[in-house]
Amino acid sequence: MVEKIKFQLDEKDIPTTWYNIVADLPDAKDATVLDPATGAALGRDDLLHVMPKELAEQETSTEREFEIPEPVRQLYAQWRPSPLFRARRLEKALGTPARIYYKYEGVAPTGSHKPNTGIPQAYYNKLAGKTGLVTETGAGQWGSAAALSTAMFGMTAKVFMVKVSFEQKPYRRALMESFGATCIPSPSIETAAGRAILAEDPDSPGSLGIATSEALEVAMQNPELGYCLGSAANHVLAHQTVIGQEALLQMAMADDYPDIVVGCSGGGSNLAGLSFPFLGEQLRGGKKVRVIAVEPAACPTLTKGQIAYDYSDTGRLGPLFRMHTLGHKFVPPAVHAGGLRAHGIGPLITRVLEEELIEATAVGQLECFEAGVQFARSEGILPAPESTHAIRGAIDEAIRCREEGQSRAILFGLSGHGHFDLSAYDKYFAGQLTDEIADEAILQQAAASIPEVTLL
Amino acid sequence: MVEKIKFQLDEKDIPTTWYNIVADLPDAKDATVLDPATGAALGRDDLLHVMPKELAEQETSTEREFEIPEPVRQLYAQWRPSPLFRARRLEKALGTPARIYYKYEGVAPTGSHKPNTGIPQAYYNKLAGKTGLVTETGAGQWGSAAALSTAMFGMTAKVFMVKVSFEQKPYRRALMESFGATCIPSPSIETAAGRAILAEDPDSPGSLGIATSEALEVAMQNPELGYCLGSAANHVLAHQTVIGQEALLQMAMADDYPDIVVGCSGGGSNLAGLSFPFLGEQLRGGKKVRVIAVEPAACPTLTKGQIAYDYSDTGRLGPLFRMHTLGHKFVPPAVHAGGLRAHGIGPLITRVLEEELIEATAVGQLECFEAGVQFARSEGILPAPESTHAIRGAIDEAIRCREEGQSRAILFGLSGHGHFDLSAYDKYFAGQLTDEIADEAILQQAAASIPEVTLL
Repeated sequence: MVEKIKFQLDEKDIPTTWYNIVADLPDAKDATVLDPATGAALGRDDLLHVMPKELAEQETSTEREFEIPEPVRQLYAQWRPSPLFRARRLEKALGTPARIYYKYEGVAPTGSHKPNTGIPQAYYNKLAGKTGLVTETGAGQWGSAAALSTAMFGMTAKVFMVKVSFEQKPYRRALMESFGATCIPSPSIETAAGRAILAEDPDSPGSLGIATSEALEVAMQNPELGYCLGSAANHVLAHQTVIGQEALLQMAMADDYPDIVVGCSGGGSNLAGLSFPFLGEQLRGGKKVRVIAVEPAACPTLTKGQIAYDYSDTGRLGPLFRMHTLGHKFVPPAVHAGGLRAHGIGPLITRVLEEELIEATAVGQLECFEAGVQFARSEGILPAPESTHAIRGAIDEAIRCREEGQSRAILFGLSGHGHFDLSAYDKYFAGQLTDEIADEAILQQAAASIPEVTLL
Repeated sequence: MVEKIKFQLDEKDIPTTWYNIVADLPDAKDATVLDPATGAALGRDDLLHVMPKELAEQETSTEREFEIPEPVRQLYAQWRPSPLFRARRLEKALGTPARIYYKYEGVAPTGSHKPNTGIPQAYYNKLAGKTGLVTETGAGQWGSAAALSTAMFGMTAKVFMVKVSFEQKPYRRALMESFGATCIPSPSIETAAGRAILAEDPDSPGSLGIATSEALEVAMQNPELGYCLGSAANHVLAHQTVIGQEALLQMAMADDYPDIVVGCSGGGSNLAGLSFPFLGEQLRGGKKVRVIAVEPAACPTLTKGQIAYDYSDTGRLGPLFRMHTLGHKFVPPAVHAGGLRAHGIGPLITRVLEEELIEATAVGQLECFEAGVQFARSEGILPAPESTHAIRGAIDEAIRCREEGQSRAILFGLSGHGHFDLSAYDKYFAGQLTDEIADEAILQQAAASIPEVTLL
């Protein structure tokens, strides 16, 4: 090869453990998860009614590593290790001295990083005797991963999909159905939570918070079903660290190490999956990396949210999480990066931002699509709208390298491909998209929904 | 790993040459390509006005191997070597003693095997000084590969897309546009060929033959543009042999060798790409394999066509090919395996069928979708409708193994994923699809369009 562009690991290099950054962080002052009724911190045993013991253990553990079960590694092998690329053609197009790398998760069967956690969640629930899983999904990346993962273990899947996405994205629904899942537009009449919303507003477009309430309710009323979720939780972030662990090996193959790691930021699972293993190296005395979280200006959780205890679901069925939140009643504008439209973020992302281990920036969707198209035409891969946020961040840093005459190594997470998002690209090319910056008055109003919490 | 399911080669294992089966076949009695005006056989020099010299050389060569240029191998490295999987979960679901393997080409950036030939065709045309390519596409797999390939070399692409597909599949068009290509519904008013069709029938849904005529016309009238094509031609089939060459190595990694190789059959490029390297081994004294071509009953080119000299384009602008054909005026029913709706097939497929090196079978689309869904739920990959034909063939052979109590190794070509075909799955689940068997009267009428040719 003239110039190496792909760094491919072998099946045996699939990580054998998930990495838990909690082990390397300074002790947190406050508890992460609270019982909303009592304000008491929730531990492993309090979580056993909503998740299998292994997941409850991971959720609350301070151990550095969790062993990946062999059946999970075997299913990972269908698409893992995922490739890491040097973006030489993009570098050339930008005329930058920067060395740009990207870790591509679109090779997974549903086209994003989500099955990295879907597979273990289905596995542990199967072990616990559950016959099926119930969950929520926004744009459908997580829902299709849950559908795939349950199919691999012969389980059923029931997915509450935000109604506006259900209607806008019939192909995501069809993908879930192809794997045998049932997909229900939310709010629905199937749950008390959904009926309450519909009574107030029969035309409600739904939200991830509402869909979460519906899924939780069904799981609580059907002991044979497990609830699972696609982002934010500690165990979900840990599962995603297979991404960054592989990337560490692959950067070594490239005889390089990132100065900057860029990830798109919604619930935080792709960002954490890529960056936490690098932060772990740093926390244990290794090289320092700048980690940049790039979120949509339409849903500026990290840049305009506050750190508080808040619900992840609108119906307030779940516990309170200590996280950056815009308020659980916040309904973000309908930008196409549906996977980044979360009012709250994973508590561990909040922790690393507090510790100044990462920084955050918000960008408009037009500049993201522009970056996505430039990337597609250079690198040949059409990115998901979520992933274009990381690309935007990486390109901006590469341009800065050019302006400063500095050659830095920039690694970003390409969380998924855009095959299911072509209607968004179509609208972008037709000039029908706008930046959809979150309105200050709406942000203030939503912030008022954050509950007053007295810590025990 | 408990049981190995993936056989992954290294970047260095990407083949360094394309394989040309002509070198190993008995001499053909008749010429393959004729000048329609004179009936004279066309050689390398006669093709120079429609393709660069390297492609004309490959098209007419009897050499066994063509060297793959390094810039092409480097672009191949973006997704090659593609994985070969042992379908252990499908085997279990079928309760078969058969060992089922599949070579998965959906990992390419446009989701099918087509860039294997798009990249070299763009490369050679760039070398020849062309600034862009023009081509035709049916369902869009080839058009998006051409769009990708030209983008990688900074060239333009103009793609005539069969109008009915252009309207049914706006996302394929959007994908091409994302890579910077221009996509035009065919028949169009841009060409004399298109205008002639529209004058007869303003509502013509178009066909691949019409789109081919339009693309050829534009290329002939614009010397700065090259014409390229996605299947059937000898050089296209040769480029696709990277699939089978890799599969040979991967079957060795699995310590196995196929008794049966199954491929879907339209123009023949995926079938040839997978099977020709195995047939080459056999022709040079190696182990015999049964090769099964599976085509749609809606377009039964191999099972109901005749061997004759015929045009590949409706407008009769191109040369005459000696091939199985249903007649160049045949318009197949609108089945969803758009990539298999070709009235003629690659002349080399006809040659290997004549030599009884392969066999052919035709199947209905309902049994193909059924096989595709069973595959998705077992193996986790949603297949393209084209690929479901190979899956159907493989499953039928695996069931036969079960009935006969025989453990045979079955290798099939999974030519692409079905991410762009979810509307077809949606209709299948809704019970809106039928088998669309080609009508005998229409087949007879179309056969009458095969020209009388007197060989010189």
